[in-house]
Order: sequence, then C-alpha cells, then structure tokens
Amino acid sequence: MANKTDLLLLFDHPTEPVFMDKGKEQAFFEIPDSYETDNYKKVSKNVQNRVGGDKNRVIFIKELPVPDLSIPMTLGRTDQFSVFLKSHRWQAGNLIEIFTKLPSFEELISVAVYAKDRINPALFNYALSVALAHRGDTKNLRLPTVSELFPDRFIDSQVIRTVSEQLFVLEGTPSPDPIIIPVNYTASDMDPEHSLWYFREDLGINLHHWHWHLVYPIEVTPGADKSIVDKDRRGELFYYMHQQVIARYNAERLSNYMGKVKALEDLDEPIAEGYFPKMNSLMASRAYPPRFNNTRLTSVDRPVNQLKVSVDDVKRWRDRIYQAIHQGFVVDVKNDKIALDEVKGIDILGNIVEASALSPNMALYGDMHNMGHILLAYSHDPDHRHLEAHGVMGDSTTAMRDPVFYRWHAFIDNVFQEHKRLLRPYEVEELNYPGIQVLKVEVNSKNQTNKLTTFWQQSQVNMSRGFDFLPRSNVLAQITHLQHVPFTYTINAVNSANAARFGYVRIFMAPKPNGRNVSSFLAEQRLAMIELDKFVVQLNPGLNTFVRRSTESSVTIPYERTFRNLDENTPAKNSPEEQESFFCGCGWPNHMLVPKGRPEGLPFELFVMISNYDNDRIDQDTVGGCNDAGSYCGIRDRKYPDRRSMGYPFDRMPQLNAVVLKDFLLPNMHTVDITITHEDRTEKRFE
Amino acid sequence: MANKTDLLLLFDHPTEPVFMDKGKEQAFFEIPDSYETDNYKKVSKNVQNRVGGDKNRVIFIKELPVPDLSIPMTLGRTDQFSVFLKSHRWQAGNLIEIFTKLPSFEELISVAVYAKDRINPALFNYALSVALAHRGDTKNLRLPTVSELFPDRFIDSQVIRTVSEQLFVLEGTPSPDPIIIPVNYTASDMDPEHSLWYFREDLGINLHHWHWHLVYPIEVTPGADKSIVDKDRRGELFYYMHQQVIARYNAERLSNYMGKVKALEDLDEPIAEGYFPKMNSLMASRAYPPRFNNTRLTSVDRPVNQLKVSVDDVKRWRDRIYQAIHQGFVVDVKNDKIALDEVKGIDILGNIVEASALSPNMALYGDMHNMGHILLAYSHDPDHRHLEAHGVMGDSTTAMRDPVFYRWHAFIDNVFQEHKRLLRPYEVEELNYPGIQVLKVEVNSKNQTNKLTTFWQQSQVNMSRGFDFLPRSNVLAQITHLQHVPFTYTINAVNSANAARFGYVRIFMAPKPNGRNVSSFLAEQRLAMIELDKFVVQLNPGLNTFVRRSTESSVTIPYERTFRNLDENTPAKNSPEEQESFFCGCGWPNHMLVPKGRPEGLPFELFVMISNYDNDRIDQDTVGGCNDAGSYCGIRDRKYPDRRSMGYPFDRMPQLNAVVLKDFLLPNMHTVDITITHEDRTEKRFE
Repeated sequence: MANKTDLLLLFDHPTEPVFMDKGKEQAFFEIPDSYETDNYKKVSKNVQNRVGGDKNRVIFIKELPVPDLSIPMTLGRTDQFSVFLKSHRWQAGNLIEIFTKLPSFEELISVAVYAKDRINPALFNYALSVALAHRGDTKNLRLPTVSELFPDRFIDSQVIRTVSEQLFVLEGTPSPDPIIIPVNYTASDMDPEHSLWYFREDLGINLHHWHWHLVYPIEVTPGADKSIVDKDRRGELFYYMHQQVIARYNAERLSNYMGKVKALEDLDEPIAEGYFPKMNSLMASRAYPPRFNNTRLTSVDRPVNQLKVSVDDVKRWRDRIYQAIHQGFVVDVKNDKIALDEVKGIDILGNIVEASALSPNMALYGDMHNMGHILLAYSHDPDHRHLEAHGVMGDSTTAMRDPVFYRWHAFIDNVFQEHKRLLRPYEVEELNYPGIQVLKVEVNSKNQTNKLTTFWQQSQVNMSRGFDFLPRSNVLAQITHLQHVPFTYTINAVNSANAARFGYVRIFMAPKPNGRNVSSFLAEQRLAMIELDKFVVQLNPGLNTFVRRSTESSVTIPYERTFRNLDENTPAKNSPEEQESFFCGCGWPNHMLVPKGRPEGLPFELFVMISNYDNDRIDQDTVGGCNDAGSYCGIRDRKYPDRRSMGYPFDRMPQLNAVVLKDFLLPNMHTVDITITHEDRTEKRFE
Repeated sequence: MANKTDLLLLFDHPTEPVFMDKGKEQAFFEIPDSYETDNYKKVSKNVQNRVGGDKNRVIFIKELPVPDLSIPMTLGRTDQFSVFLKSHRWQAGNLIEIFTKLPSFEELISVAVYAKDRINPALFNYALSVALAHRGDTKNLRLPTVSELFPDRFIDSQVIRTVSEQLFVLEGTPSPDPIIIPVNYTASDMDPEHSLWYFREDLGINLHHWHWHLVYPIEVTPGADKSIVDKDRRGELFYYMHQQVIARYNAERLSNYMGKVKALEDLDEPIAEGYFPKMNSLMASRAYPPRFNNTRLTSVDRPVNQLKVSVDDVKRWRDRIYQAIHQGFVVDVKNDKIALDEVKGIDILGNIVEASALSPNMALYGDMHNMGHILLAYSHDPDHRHLEAHGVMGDSTTAMRDPVFYRWHAFIDNVFQEHKRLLRPYEVEELNYPGIQVLKVEVNSKNQTNKLTTFWQQSQVNMSRGFDFLPRSNVLAQITHLQHVPFTYTINAVNSANAARFGYVRIFMAPKPNGRNVSSFLAEQRLAMIELDKFVVQLNPGLNTFVRRSTESSVTIPYERTFRNLDENTPAKNSPEEQESFFCGCGWPNHMLVPKGRPEGLPFELFVMISNYDNDRIDQDTVGGCNDAGSYCGIRDRKYPDRRSMGYPFDRMPQLNAVVLKDFLLPNMHTVDITITHEDRTEKRFE
C-alpha cells in the first residue's frame, strides 16, 4: 500500500521510466499494464527483476480511470519548459488542476504514476510540486529542491561527465570523493563582468529565484481558481524583491571595483554582455544556448511557443506604463481609472509590469517584464529557424546566471522608481517614534567590532536523485560559494515612556558615500540600501539592549536549506517550517547575506531604525507560515508581515533637506560605519 | 601476451580509464602500478574484479621506461582538439614521433597504454591512428572509424540521451531496437539553407573530410620527417577535392531550387548563415558552440591556443596570393621566383593557400585557408573571454556541417580559379584522341535509360565503442541518408586504328544549362562539372562496348565502408584494400555519388571522354595502394594516378569558340542528357 511520502519518489530521477527503482530503498512502483508507455511495453517486470528481484519494497498502483492529459502532453518530453511562456503555464496549470482536484490520495498517486512517463519531466515536476503544496492532504510533505532533481540547471555540464565516470568506474564504492563543482568556469579575467560569477551562479540565489516564482505563479489556466496568484501585495513584492536583488548586485559590483549596473533602457543597442552558460539540459540533451557579446534584440516570432512579441511592443508597454505613472492612474479594461496612490499604487504597478494575471489591463499595459525575458532568452534564434530552445533568461532556475538579468531588472526597477519618485516624502511623523531613542548600534563578528569578514566556503549538496541512467550511488557535490563570519547586531535603545512599547527594528546597509563610485546623496544612496533584517522587539521603559544574530535575518533562509544533506523519503520531522520546504525554500540564502568585501576593506553604513510596531503590525498568527524570509517572500497563506510600504523608510525620496543619510536621522534611528573585508581563503564546511 | 590487434582496443571507449574492459571479449589490460593515474590509484584491480573477475582475457603490459610525454600532455584532457591549431598539431606531432620511433611492438603497446589516460583522448586517437598507419609493423591493422569512437561529433546530442536510457534501462537485453538518429534536427523550413542538411550533416561526407585531412596532414613537428606531408601533388589535390565539393554542393542547391553558394569574399560583412550544430562533445561535456545569423568576423587573439590572427592578416595573404597569380610567380623565402606554370602552378598554389608545410613562403603568403577556418570557428568568442572552444569549423570531422564551410571554400576556389583562368585553353591536340570515337553513351538504372533516381535510405552503424560509462551492449544507430538506384554507364566507342589502344575514360556530369539558374556558357558550366568516374579501357579495333557500374566509381568508397557493421578486433581478412582502412576510408561516400534529384526531374548533361592513356598514365603498381577513390584522395604511397591536371579537361577555360558544351566536343567525347528524379520515400537497407 502506498503511503503519502511515496509521492515524493515520483520526483526522483526525473527522466527515467516510472518503473525503475526509486529512492534509497530502491522501491518499485508496480504499475498496471495499461499504464506502460509504448516504448517500454511489457518490460517493466523484467527490468525490476533484473535490478532488484523481490528484495525491494513494492508500491502497488491501482488501475483507475485516467483523466484527459492531452493538454499537458502537448509539450514534448525533451522540450525545454519555461514558466515565462504562456503556453507552458497553461499546460502546467491544466495538470495542476487535474492533480489538485483528485479527491483521494490513492487517485492522486495513481494518476501521477500514469502521468510521469507521458509528461515533460520539468513540467511534471513543476505541476506536481505546486499541486502537492496546495492540496490539504499533502501540503506538509517536504518536497525536494529543484537542484537535487535537475542539477544540470545549476552546474557546469562538465560535472555531468565527471559524475558519469565516477559512478560507472567506481560503481558500488561506498563513499567516493565528492564531485568538485568547478568555480569560475564561465569567467575569465578579460571581462570585468565575469568577476561576479560567484553571485550570478550561486546555487542559493538561483534557488531563491526559482522558489519565489514558484510561490508567486504568474497566472493560472483561464477559468481556474486564481487564489494561488492573488496573494497579498504580490505586485509590490515583485517590485521589492527584485529591487533588493539589484541593490545587492550593485554592492557586489562595488566590491569588484565596478560601477552600478547599466539599466537596459535602450532596447535597440547591441547588448555588450554576452553569456555562455556552459550547461547542458539532461532532459533535452541539448546545451543552453549562449548569447554572444553585442547581440541585438529582434522581434520574437515562434509559433512553436505560441509566441509573437516585438521590440516595439515592449517599448509601447513601457511608454504606456510611464504615462500611467505620470498621470497617477491606470485604466482598467472597463476604461475606469485606478489611482496609483501611495498605498496600493506600487502593488498595481507590480502586477502590471510583471505582468501577472492580476494586471488590471493586460491588453493596454501588456506583459513587459516577462516579454523582456523572452526577447533576451531567444535573441539567438528569435524566429525558431534554428529550432533552438530558450537561453538561461527563459527559465527562473537559470535566469540570474546571466549578466543581462541585472541590466533588465535595473530597467524594470527604474520604472518602479519613477512612481516612487513622484510620491511625497515621508513626513517626520511617519518616520519617528516619539519616546524611543536608539543610542548605539554595534556589529560584532567573532572578536571584531563593526568589521565583517567574507571568505570562500566549500559546502556539499547531494545530487543523487538527479543523475539518471547511472548506477545508484550517493553523488555528493562540493560547491564553492561566498560566506561571511556570523555576526550579531547589538542595539541599545531607550524607551522614555512609562510603559513597554513594541518596536519594529529595521536594519539596512548601503555602501558608504565616498565621493567616487558611491553617491553622497541620500536620494541615490537610498536605492543602494540592502535590507538585512526586520524584527519585533519589546521596549521596556529605560535602557534596552537587543542582540540579534545574523542567522535570524528576515530576508534569508538558513544555510541548511541550501546545502542540506537530503534524507530521502524521511517524513517531515523537524520544526513546522521544515515541513513546508516548498514555501520555505523561498528566501535569500544566508551565505549571501553580506556582500563580498574587499581585501583592503569596503566601507558601508549600517542603518537601524525602530518604528512604532502599532503602526506596522499585521495581526495574524505566523506560526507554521514559514516566515524565515518574510521580507523578500511574504508568509505562506498570510499577509505580508508589515503594514508599511516595502523598503520603508527608503522607498521614497527623502525630504529636500535630507541631503545625506545623517540629515535623515531621527532619534529612533542610528547609523554605524562598518567595514567588510574579504579574505581570499577557502574553508571546508564539512568534515 | 599482447598481440597486435590488442592495440586496437586502446581506441575503444576513448574517455574511459585504460583498465576498464575493452572490446567484445571485454579484455583487460593488466597495467603496472606505476602506470596508474593519480585519480584511480590502486583501484584498477578492484574494478576489474567487479566487472569480470578472472573470466576475461588479460593482456599483460610490461613496465618499461616511459618517454617524456610533457608536450602532448599540455593539452587538457577535456579540451577540444583541433588539427587547425598549430599548437595542437605540434603536440600531436610529438606523440606521433614517439609512437613511430619505438623500436618494438611491445614497447609501442606499453607506452600507448601508459599514455592513454594521460593524453587528451582525441589527440591520443589521432596520434595513435597516424602512427599505426605509418609503422611498418602495424600499417595493415584495420583502424576503427572516428565516427564509431566519437559518435558525438557526428550526431544530434539528443541521441546520447536516448542511448544512455536504452543501455541503462534495457541493460543486457540482447538486441534492442536500433537508435534512430533524427533527421532534420538542425533544419527548419524557414531557412532555405537548411534544406541541405542531408548533405552537410551526412556521415559519409564528414568522414571523407576527416580522412582526407588525416591522409594529408598539414605539417609535422619542426625537425621531424616531412614525408607524411610531402605527398604527390597534395597541393593540387587540396584544390581539386575541395573544388569538387563545391561543384557537388551547388548541384544539391540547384536540386533544392537555390542559386549557387555565395563565396565569402567580403570578410567584413555579417555572415548571414548561422549554424547551431546541436552536438555535445562527450569528451569535453560541453556543446559545440553555435554561430548566430549575421555574426561578424573579428580578429582572433587566444593565447590559450597560441593563436593570434586578424581579419586584416587574411586579407593581406589573399591580396599577396592574387598578386602572385597575376604576376605568374611566387617568391620563396630566399626571394627566388617560382613560376606558377600550367603543370606545377596549381600544386604550389594549393600548398600556399591551404597552407601546408610545403608552402614555399609561409611568412609572405601566410596561412589563409586554415586561418579562415579559425576566424569562423571562434567568431563566437574570438578573445577567449568566455572560455569557449571552437565551433564546428575548427574540426575536420565537423566542419562540413556548417553552411559557411561552403561559402569559405567557394572563396578559396575562386582564388584557385583565378590562376586557372589565366592559363591558355587546351589545344585540340591536348584533348582529342585521333582514331577514337565515342559513338554513344547510355546510363541504365534498373529499367530506366538516362534516368537516375534518388531516394532516402536507412542504414545502420555500430557505435558501441564510443559510448563511455554505460553498460556494454551493441549500440546500433539507424541513419537516414540520401541514396540512388545503382546504375551503369554503357559506352560504345570505335577504334579506327588497327591495333588495340588504351583509353582513360573520364565521366563528368553538370546541371544542364536552362537559361535560368544554370549558366549556358561552358566557361561557367565547367566549374559545375562533377567527376563521376575515371577508368582505363582497352580499345580493340572496331566497335567496343564498355559497361561500368556506378559502384566502381574512382571518386567513391563503397557503401560498406561508411555503414559497415564493425567486427571488433578481427584481424584484417578481406581484400588488401580492406586492410588499410586508414587510407581507404578516404573517399566520397558512394551513397552521395549522385546529387539529389527533383520530384519533377532535374536535367543534367553527362559527359564522357576517352583520352589517350599513353599521355595520362603513371606507371606504378597500384595493388594494395587503396585506390578506390584515387581521384579525390590519391593512392597510398603512390603517385596520383593521372598525369593530367586534376579536373582535366574542364580545369581550364575553353577556347573562345567553345561557347557551350556542344562546341567543345571532339570525336572522343560524347554527351547525353540525363534526368535525376528524387522519390520522397525511405527504404531500409538492412533487414
């Protein structure tokens, strides 16, 4: 009899036939004859006998009436799946609905087993993930991370060869050396852009991006329930999460002695930055196509993807969105005006720009952000004459590897900032917290005060489930990534009132104005502000000291969620959060919380503000909501945990008299100068 | 004890460690401990026990002093090897010398076993192939074809996935279905160029090109014996073989309703034709990079390849070569003039243009042909900033897949034709054969007269040896290719003399002038002449009838040499030719002898000439010389089997009064109109 965790076995070895051995126990699905596909008619028993005989656990699958899968089956088995494509979203949406509506677990696993060998493996993985996360009877299953199942989307294709060699030659050897994932394999020292490989190609950052878009799907199949799209302030979160990515990316650029990323404003100019991902899709057995230096965007017309979009389309949408911003309202499909006010304006704009199914007028404002990805993702073969699939920009698991991702999102952010620039600055009453004074802020890292340290770290991930058609063995991959020495914030604050008050501590950091690469003006510096943490404190009358650990950050998920050792098929056993990794996987990876320093030290200003929690609070129970990284990801099934605009207090232009950050400070705020030093050494995290 | 054919086992599974099981017998090399590489120290015995225990034949390898391999080891194990790169040629040349000079077979196999896991697999294969073919004690070994060992350079990368799946899932199944090699996988109907996929991506054509360049290496390591380069009329053969490729390609274009290929004369213009090879190198575990439509050539500066060449360099070489042609002489390194006369001129020009080590002045005339390949092969990453290897144009096994190959060689041919155009036309006495008259020519194919038929055929090749790190099993791949119904030429000729005479029958074919796509002028039509055959006949007094089969063509190798079923490790057993497949592999594939027809029929003029063999003959014994395809490949260790200029009688401009082909005819010549009809059906060649 199947149990619920057996569903997770269907994620294993995504391109292998369903009757192959699955999981650590090498369990078998015993499938009805009618479920076998034509290419393996009647062979499953023979294969199972060869591989395991009767030693293995057998999961009997009941033969049931199978729903019509013709819509998701329109995508070929070896095609590249992309949620940026409407046709693929609809195919996936259809399958999600099928999985979600099956009344019993028994029906779900039977249909899923039937579907596995008939549906494109990436689409199957996506649809089953979303469905399991939204079904009441399966939402607590701990889903595997996409990088464990599709490692090819995260690593140098040469690793695949190494893994094949190791597993084949050393078959059965209990603990072979970990496979070294190369660093720097796309990066030469001839191109300054390449120095950012460790950020763009970071496993955790790309997983975050994938998770974010999984948590916030763009749309559902027409007619289906919109609730998985219509989440609290999702448009605003789209703006804010990506704005923070750009702020963080610019900090990394500064660390590498480079200026801010140049927004892709001019869609006609050749795009200087090429990108060669050096990744092969195992599913497609084809390489991710590169983009050469100085490629120009041209209109995309690919009937195979039901896709037709011109560069002019995107320009028109951009101009209409700017017009809406400058007129202060958008027009919906009934031609009614919706004000872009200071509360809801950015959320509406986010829905319009992204564009999600919540856009009030898709025909008029179009599909700017997605179609920008599309123009870039197909610039090598815009009319499909070469039968090529999308480049990395066409897939949320891979897009952040490409330097042009940041150029495109810098442009997207400029559009949002145009709206924010027109809002009135916050008044003092909206910023201060009468009676609360922050006296001192200190950052402590090991024995150092106000000095952070970054370095390289080697961690391991288990990629065993993702290497198909190879002898079963553990595949430990050793990944080199940025890391920082853990630190704490110590905040001294005085409450001059007689009663305890609640405060929302907001911690940001931005490069310190130095008159050269970094602007001295708060009007610009505010855009460089990186949110580090946000948490509630109780301020007792008198002096309060708060110590907060960097690992508790509200923007990050713990190290172990990126680099965990996967215990396959074990039921959820940890904290409630741990049970819901689908949502909880979303979040900036903690190892990337701090931008890389410079060997000689890179000065930042750390900003701490305690705002009045009475004005900020959302009254809700967040237990079980998976709120590690609420600032960038929201909280599952809950409202965004802050009533303020995202990015507050830096989301708007400062008052005219606040020329530099110091001018902006009120008693409930404080800054401290810190230095980030990078030590060019590599530590192993495991023994 | 090792025997000579055991050397061939070293070609098997090119990227697997040498201690893995090899060949059908799954034989093992028992290697000295000191031969083990660091990454597999002390594991070879364990692995051999696991794989076969003592059941397998063991080949004991003697520990011997190992020569210095540091030069060939400078190329990384996963780097892409290219004979177009001087540095790679020198690395290979060094290893060839090492292999060639080892006094005994025992030393050869010991050093080769030691080298196998230390040398880049493609370089190892190339160097060992050349060495075995040139050593007296091994030259009769039948070497495997490169497509059996490196199938990844000949087929869609998706096939690799299919093979992995089949071998893994159906491991041990005795005769699984053949793997279908897709057709058309790089070709859409949006691009007229794509209709030529069946020619550009033909297995036999690409093997021919690889063999040709293997038989005619460009150079040896400085100081080494030049004899493998300095073959009879090699410069002229370079010109002629490639000229014929262009003539054949243009016939295929006509078949597809396209005009002649446009020579790449202007190195500054964007190259309209992109190419996406969709092939992954198994050795590098990286894709062959594509070239986008409208890519511009820029100077290549890649220290990693010891390569620096500018577009201007190539222009300068071109202009100097044109100047030499127009002045009628080249200048050697001593500043002496060498006349470009009608006998040796084209051979000298061939050496200069290619350029081979026989070029009389490399400094002045440069390296035009090779560097054109290089500029094109690296146009996606000319300065190596993206750490990319060469595209298909950088490798003789893959170059002919790319439409730009034909544009480049059309330009190269224009240079040669500029020389030929300046030669005086042949006089009647150089063309006629007094007393010999060709009365009638007929082409018979099945029941049809003067009608040839082309169609699609499916054939099989065994690629088992080239799929590494997979369970051992036969991998039969089914390839779809052009084929024609076999035919015969029947030639009636009268000898009016009283004694028997010998004649050299020369058969050409060119599209029939039709006033639209095809020029009516012989001055142009001569360049479209495709050599079909050349053979000696004895003309007895009176009427003679000669019947010649299309399979006997002097430009082709037999079908079985492209699509043979490989009997692994069997000693040479067939005809002497069959023993020397290294040389004998060179030749146009017989299945591509006839250009594809059109459904409605495509008219050609077939031209037959009987020249006086007394003027043409080279007195030599050609038995054992492997002369199937002598017209395009020469004969092993022999002179080119014709004293006439290659392409005679069409290699020069006709006399002014020979406006059309009819005007050119003498009694010893004859033409017949034939039609080539393509039937769009697919036949299986095997049962």
